[in-house]
Amino acid sequence: MSKPIIVQKFGGSSVANVERIKAVAQRIVETKTKKNNIVVVVSALGDTTDDLVQLAQNISEHPPEREMDMLMATGEQISCALVAMAIKELGQDAISFTGSQVGIVTDNTHTKAKIEKISARTIRKALRQNKIVIVAGFQGMTKNNEITTLGRGGSDLTAVALAIAIKAQVCEIFTDVEGIYTTDPRIVPEAKKIKEITFDEMLEMASLGAQVMQPRSIEVARRFNIPIHVRSSFSKEEGTMIIKNTQKLEDLAVSGITCNKAEAKITICNVPDKPGVAADIFTEISDAGVMVDTIVQNVGHTRQTDISFTVLKTDLAKALKATAVIAAKLKAGEVLHDKNIARISIVGSGMRSHRGVAAKMFQTLAEHKVNIEMITTSDISVSCIIGQTQAEKAVKALHKAFSLEE
Amino acid sequence: MSKPIIVQKFGGSSVANVERIKAVAQRIVETKTKKNNIVVVVSALGDTTDDLVQLAQNISEHPPEREMDMLMATGEQISCALVAMAIKELGQDAISFTGSQVGIVTDNTHTKAKIEKISARTIRKALRQNKIVIVAGFQGMTKNNEITTLGRGGSDLTAVALAIAIKAQVCEIFTDVEGIYTTDPRIVPEAKKIKEITFDEMLEMASLGAQVMQPRSIEVARRFNIPIHVRSSFSKEEGTMIIKNTQKLEDLAVSGITCNKAEAKITICNVPDKPGVAADIFTEISDAGVMVDTIVQNVGHTRQTDISFTVLKTDLAKALKATAVIAAKLKAGEVLHDKNIARISIVGSGMRSHRGVAAKMFQTLAEHKVNIEMITTSDISVSCIIGQTQAEKAVKALHKAFSLEE
Repeated sequence: MSKPIIVQKFGGSSVANVERIKAVAQRIVETKTKKNNIVVVVSALGDTTDDLVQLAQNISEHPPEREMDMLMATGEQISCALVAMAIKELGQDAISFTGSQVGIVTDNTHTKAKIEKISARTIRKALRQNKIVIVAGFQGMTKNNEITTLGRGGSDLTAVALAIAIKAQVCEIFTDVEGIYTTDPRIVPEAKKIKEITFDEMLEMASLGAQVMQPRSIEVARRFNIPIHVRSSFSKEEGTMIIKNTQKLEDLAVSGITCNKAEAKITICNVPDKPGVAADIFTEISDAGVMVDTIVQNVGHTRQTDISFTVLKTDLAKALKATAVIAAKLKAGEVLHDKNIARISIVGSGMRSHRGVAAKMFQTLAEHKVNIEMITTSDISVSCIIGQTQAEKAVKALHKAFSLEE
Repeated sequence: MSKPIIVQKFGGSSVANVERIKAVAQRIVETKTKKNNIVVVVSALGDTTDDLVQLAQNISEHPPEREMDMLMATGEQISCALVAMAIKELGQDAISFTGSQVGIVTDNTHTKAKIEKISARTIRKALRQNKIVIVAGFQGMTKNNEITTLGRGGSDLTAVALAIAIKAQVCEIFTDVEGIYTTDPRIVPEAKKIKEITFDEMLEMASLGAQVMQPRSIEVARRFNIPIHVRSSFSKEEGTMIIKNTQKLEDLAVSGITCNKAEAKITICNVPDKPGVAADIFTEISDAGVMVDTIVQNVGHTRQTDISFTVLKTDLAKALKATAVIAAKLKAGEVLHDKNIARISIVGSGMRSHRGVAAKMFQTLAEHKVNIEMITTSDISVSCIIGQTQAEKAVKALHKAFSLEE
């Protein structure tokens, strides 16, 4: 009954075709011993999700979300059945379940539902029969038996949530990279795989642009203290452990550097500087369905101020429309925008105890003639918005300045 | 509450691509009025089912049946979601359900489950909200929440079973032909569409090779007296009504002629003619998983007899293996087989009241120099096994002899 349980999650690229499905099955079977139990979560095969979205869009420009969930949930149902078949073919017993069968109950926000509770009963019963349990990721059902999907990063979330429900020892996230790196190895070849990183650091890195995991599931893992092991489905190497506290005696000042080019900057010039103006602006933009990231207001010495903020490039058109409306209403000046920006961030829990980290960042950028347009900080990160053409140069310089290649 | 309900079933070719799905949606919307309710059953898109089978077979030669059902059920889930989207796009409200959501409870014979009961509650609730209900065909779930599929002709069965559960007025089966014909129009261009046919006749024709509908769902419709309307999804023409009693004053002697080339004949020569021999033979063959159709034993004047029977060509190898075993055990003679046979059948409820129908069939075949190898009869059909090369000639001659082109 109380054998340790390992949850393993395989993403779409890990099960992209028959050969990879067989390799995944092999890997799962090798992990299974008489002394442990395995629960596997799988995403949809390779491009299935995109293909289904395309099908729906050929029928309707805005397909109803409930029906989208009916459609999208089939992707993971297919892959979990195939992985179960592949495991049985290797002589191990396995059984697949949809999100609904396994008792993943969500609210009824179709296409981005939130998990409300998970019943561990079905899984526990299958594990007692010594079966490897395969669960379709990304999906659940409402109390009224409606099929829902969990939105971006949904399969990771399924894995973490199941790990919590069945009290797993660790949640292994298999992906196409070896783990979390000090920075993007495509930019800095000297980037190193991080052995251990705290939930806080990982959350900060994910929200600042590291694309390995969605912040959503890291937050949940942190809340319930479930260790996550991010590792490659193509190698046996240990990856990166995401845990509550690393075992290092002293934290490094900076653990990683991220670079995010997905944002654009909008500036409203000459905004009358009176109370309530910021609220008016960002209510208008939020009502347009746009998420705003960094906001910087330059405190003016006159009665007018410039307000700058960043939004996702994909939301830029919507954001500009809403901004034009509110700028006119407030009798503000010109609205400027810039798509050629990059957000460079340094992240590290050690910042809390190391002084001068931000100063060192600014100094390094200055030495390399990188102009800083906006600055924001949190207790474990510092971000600078700079010109996109200087992004690679800045990341390389910072990686070296903070000795991350050592 | 008590508006008349029409059940419409669309097969895989009717929803093979986006254009056809849109056409099907258009058709459904045209049928819907303020005074009726529509429940639609859909099969999987075109070749989806074959593609999924292929995927599974690339992973395992004999994939576990429970996992096959998990996999196969996605085909219909995709199509019902897409049809619901297409209907909503046309401005009508629609909602899709899986077999499990709609309460189609089956036994647990995976890949060929039998429906045990259907709860009409979910559908009735949606109909009261004036929604067009789209149900995934071919699937159900067990009492333990396991996904099952219903085997061949499963979507027709879903449609008929739903029609019974919700007390529908008629079950319309949309297909790629205009209805049931007096015989295969590819063989006899003069073949005529039959306006009305009884359940008994249709059952007989289906079991004798007419491929429009599986006998299974016709049997269920007969038991609960649900009229079936077989019609084309590509035209507005009325098709063929399958009903309990036709409204004709007098039945025709023969309503239709079928031709089936799917069988092969096996003959065991010189079987010792003693009690229990036939039982031994057909137990052995049945144990090998082979379905036997016609059996003919020539009563011998010696102590030995020849026993001939037909099996599906796809089962021939298995059947021959089993036959060789039992023939040796019984010390019988040679085992012969012939793949080049055809079963030609005449079908008609009128046979019960018309005399000389069989004689006329034999005479017609004789006139056209068609040699008859085996004969079997039921109360509303006569079948002859003949050489396959003579099949077309025989069907044409019989169609004319029984005046079916008039």
